Amino acid sequence: MTKRVAIIGAGPSGLAQLRAFQSAKEKGADIPEVVCFEKQSNWGGLWNYTWRTGLDQYGEPVHGSMYRYLWSNGPKEGLEFADYSFEEHFGKQIASYPPRAVLFDYIEGRVKKAGVRDLIRFETAVRSVEETDDGKFTVKVKDLPGDNEYEEVFDYVVCASGHFSTPNVPEFEGFDSFKGRVLHAHDFRDALEFKDMDLLLIGTSYSAEDIGSQCWKYGAKSITVSHRTAAMGYDWPDNWAEVPLLLKVDGNTAHFKDGTSRKVDAIILCTGYQHHFPFMADNLCLRTANRLATANLYKGVAWIDNPNLFYLGMQDQWFTFNMFDAQAWWARDVMLGRIALPDRATMLADVEERVAREDAGEDDYDAIWYQGDYVKELIAETDYPSFDLEGACQAFKEWKGHKKKNIMTFRDNGYKSVITGTMAPKHHTPWKDALDDSLEVYLQN
Amino acid sequence: MTKRVAIIGAGPSGLAQLRAFQSAKEKGADIPEVVCFEKQSNWGGLWNYTWRTGLDQYGEPVHGSMYRYLWSNGPKEGLEFADYSFEEHFGKQIASYPPRAVLFDYIEGRVKKAGVRDLIRFETAVRSVEETDDGKFTVKVKDLPGDNEYEEVFDYVVCASGHFSTPNVPEFEGFDSFKGRVLHAHDFRDALEFKDMDLLLIGTSYSAEDIGSQCWKYGAKSITVSHRTAAMGYDWPDNWAEVPLLLKVDGNTAHFKDGTSRKVDAIILCTGYQHHFPFMADNLCLRTANRLATANLYKGVAWIDNPNLFYLGMQDQWFTFNMFDAQAWWARDVMLGRIALPDRATMLADVEERVAREDAGEDDYDAIWYQGDYVKELIAETDYPSFDLEGACQAFKEWKGHKKKNIMTFRDNGYKSVITGTMAPKHHTPWKDALDDSLEVYLQN
Repeated sequence: MTKRVAIIGAGPSGLAQLRAFQSAKEKGADIPEVVCFEKQSNWGGLWNYTWRTGLDQYGEPVHGSMYRYLWSNGPKEGLEFADYSFEEHFGKQIASYPPRAVLFDYIEGRVKKAGVRDLIRFETAVRSVEETDDGKFTVKVKDLPGDNEYEEVFDYVVCASGHFSTPNVPEFEGFDSFKGRVLHAHDFRDALEFKDMDLLLIGTSYSAEDIGSQCWKYGAKSITVSHRTAAMGYDWPDNWAEVPLLLKVDGNTAHFKDGTSRKVDAIILCTGYQHHFPFMADNLCLRTANRLATANLYKGVAWIDNPNLFYLGMQDQWFTFNMFDAQAWWARDVMLGRIALPDRATMLADVEERVAREDAGEDDYDAIWYQGDYVKELIAETDYPSFDLEGACQAFKEWKGHKKKNIMTFRDNGYKSVITGTMAPKHHTPWKDALDDSLEVYLQN
Repeated sequence: MTKRVAIIGAGPSGLAQLRAFQSAKEKGADIPEVVCFEKQSNWGGLWNYTWRTGLDQYGEPVHGSMYRYLWSNGPKEGLEFADYSFEEHFGKQIASYPPRAVLFDYIEGRVKKAGVRDLIRFETAVRSVEETDDGKFTVKVKDLPGDNEYEEVFDYVVCASGHFSTPNVPEFEGFDSFKGRVLHAHDFRDALEFKDMDLLLIGTSYSAEDIGSQCWKYGAKSITVSHRTAAMGYDWPDNWAEVPLLLKVDGNTAHFKDGTSRKVDAIILCTGYQHHFPFMADNLCLRTANRLATANLYKGVAWIDNPNLFYLGMQDQWFTFNMFDAQAWWARDVMLGRIALPDRATMLADVEERVAREDAGEDDYDAIWYQGDYVKELIAETDYPSFDLEGACQAFKEWKGHKKKNIMTFRDNGYKSVITGTMAPKHHTPWKDALDDSLEVYLQN
């Protein structure tokens, strides 16, 4: 009997899994029957932009957290596919911080070439995944346009549904009566909605940094960012302030922990996301902090309590697309019997050791190299094309330096591809002046 | 063995079911063990205001469609509980169009007095309802703060989760690149978010009428309402226009079917709600249009394929709280064995007959009397206190007249209670000038 694999999600991780199997098949391997379930009507996951927020046309939670005018916040040289370079896709080298449409096109290019679209059942939401008595999985899904639920049995499940879709939404005193909009970054779509406003952002991670920068670029009157622990500390523009934690809002006045207050028109909660898998049976459900060494996953991928289940991309991320690839190739090789899993005790020890090693790191640079080593480790066990991981880490390091130097110009820099060795051209327009983020305009280099 | 009843939702319908059982117990009846599951942290359903939109703190879809400054859009004389009058609750008669906080207080008053709060498991979301082999129901729920799923078996299930929580969200050409906010009425919270804006609303039902009126009252620059079939036709203020269906948006310009166009800053989709029960097994799931004669429910309440399952409040509504009461008392009496159900053929004929009678109605007045007759029919079979249904229909009729006369002043009228016979006082401030909608201010009559 041919084995069956269910992949949940056709974003970068799920597509990596599809491509991994197709790559083995291309080289002559017998591969299992693969079915990918995707809730949205197109592939690309977060990179598939939607104007929708909240619930979609079928009453399902909207997956997308993507907003308009987003440009990559890290250099593309850190995420390039080792088996499909930017130059192969675009026919030339391109600048280092592509907008969403350009990255979407690139992600799509590889899987179009691989011819895996037929393996995806679009507009199909996974309702539940449960273990059967004989060690398989029953996957119940809903065909949304058909309004039809059905179940199928699989030997393996690859959960690749992401962890930047379910917002973490804290409440602050006075939100009940704040006379303006309060939203989470997940529902942020267009910086122009906030033109001329005094904006308050809560949080100091990528969402706050990037949404604040977007709103600044597209004409917000002022940006105030409230932090719990520490300010981001970049050299912000004049109409930008970093303040301690919000205590409460009273009418339109926000009060902070240091006793200061400000009038604000809207509040954007950049307070992160939850690992959220309501469809996974309790005993299969990953519960982890957003960190580099996730809980309960051997090699960061295989669910220790039942290693026929894999989770892809559930780490906090410096590396993205290429890390998902490394994981997908590795999971594939377990499923193909090319990689043997050790006993449970060894797998548990693997997780502990990873946690300890991450905890021993002192700063972001250690974290980057830690994750670079992890990707390298996985790649070494498969036939995924190896590439210059040191070079990618180096690009991340330079990127961090460029951000520190000037947070509003760091995207004007270029880096060397670790896949093709080519230097990225300087982009034709500084990021802060480039209001048209279309693919056509970006590629005019 | 004591029978067990699961009630899904502690909004007006679920609370009516709790009150119905408690009322029987008060009079000496043996009642089943009743468990009510409520996703939110408090009771009141839609009347429990939340500032949240999209997904809540647990990643669950936000139930609330309630917005700030909402006043009842129909006279309270049409919804008064027959067993708990406004005068009993407030100690005096109050004006006819109470704001949300006042109605919430009233709903809560009755169930506080009944002492049923302990029967409700708050912050507990129903995940699935399935039939067991021996004709019972397995209800799987998630204790959200405890992050814990569990199952229990029940003899009866009462689904009272409402049908104004899952938005119906159509797409129009150009939404992908509209340079402003697009939202559904479900996510509308505060009219002040739209102050000074040129607003486009799509739809002609209560949401459009009331959200448009709110935004007008709180300072929107202009209101344009687009209709598919027919304009609402009220005598709107000068900065208000009714236009044919939206064809597309192009940048910030909205183009309509009659060839006209307008620049708009934000778009609110007042396009209704879906009957959406993702937790109900396929064979138990109500699929119905939003109409007075719902599909598949005997007496509008009992699920014909398994009449141990009841749906409350799933009709399109002229009558609300008192209709939910009538349904809850009737369902209770079926569960208590006081009302015997006829055979399947008779139940099917009942639905057909109701559909035909609704279809034979010619206008809203026929619809009001149709639903009044329905409520009267149910009440006659139980011990729910009878009241002057004709009088309530009459209040609805006057209300419609007042709206036609002046859509911005209809809430300044008063009607006679059909429970206590008292005339409502005239409110101290015209609705359009009353910007403070708090309970304290409203009760200053």
